[in-house]
Amino acid sequence: MATVAVIITDDFEDVEYTKPAQAYQEKGHRLVHLGLQAGKTVKGKKEGTPVLIDRGLRDARVEEFDALLIPGGYSPDKLRVDEDAVRFVRQFVASDKPIFSICHAPQLLITAQVLKGRQVTGWKSIVQDIKNAGADYRDQEVVEDGNLISSRGPQDIPAFVDASLRHLH
Amino acid sequence: MATVAVIITDDFEDVEYTKPAQAYQEKGHRLVHLGLQAGKTVKGKKEGTPVLIDRGLRDARVEEFDALLIPGGYSPDKLRVDEDAVRFVRQFVASDKPIFSICHAPQLLITAQVLKGRQVTGWKSIVQDIKNAGADYRDQEVVEDGNLISSRGPQDIPAFVDASLRHLH
Repeated sequence: MATVAVIITDDFEDVEYTKPAQAYQEKGHRLVHLGLQAGKTVKGKKEGTPVLIDRGLRDARVEEFDALLIPGGYSPDKLRVDEDAVRFVRQFVASDKPIFSICHAPQLLITAQVLKGRQVTGWKSIVQDIKNAGADYRDQEVVEDGNLISSRGPQDIPAFVDASLRHLH
Repeated sequence: MATVAVIITDDFEDVEYTKPAQAYQEKGHRLVHLGLQAGKTVKGKKEGTPVLIDRGLRDARVEEFDALLIPGGYSPDKLRVDEDAVRFVRQFVASDKPIFSICHAPQLLITAQVLKGRQVTGWKSIVQDIKNAGADYRDQEVVEDGNLISSRGPQDIPAFVDASLRHLH
């Protein structure tokens, strides 16, 4: 069973966290929620879903985890200004462990400068940002490029969950 | 006196609209609020400030206005997926009339693909997006490059208002 890091803060898109999280846990995988402050409860943008931050990003080490889930909404916009969040994401991509990116999640990958030459998809508002980062933007429900698995948004969640589960052992 | 178009939708940063709007109106300038749907009232992200949309972007023509204000918050993220919004912004930049951009406003300018070679500033979360768009990012309270006047966020509002008033006649 895998240990999945979830990098998350306030105003995440509720279903982009709740649905993958439930599916991973039903398969026996463990979630560890990483955020700006351990012990704080962050909330979703639309439904106010509460998520307790288990660990602060400052102390998070890539080697403790098997995969990384980045839910969308406005959470990535808030996380990408945090140096520890950006460092963690950059190291995760370099580790070659699977990263599950949905909706606005590529914003964090852009700030981490890890998208050059990668095939990736994301929310329609950030298409130009993804292209400008040097990525090969694809308008598909799931894009798999090595360890980077990405989807566009809530409408793609079933395919996103299926694809990510294939990378968790 | 000038007619200033304000391009705005839900979840704008309240003070990035209210403070410039008040300052412009006190000097006798007129505001016209452009959004996704005429007659709808949109609301600010933190204080819920209501703004009635006077005109839909589909019918907006650059020649009717003397300047453009783009408040930040999450309004630009929602507007940049609208073709009419992007077209209007692109034409406004080409018109050489003044554009007042603050906080997340450059997201709209990025999607309109008008930032290449321009000096601009914006909210810290989008610095990498601004650079990747080919702009010369400056970490200053106000950056003036021809018709493009930009500030980083709420902390810069007094300087932003002063600079923009110098461009309204």
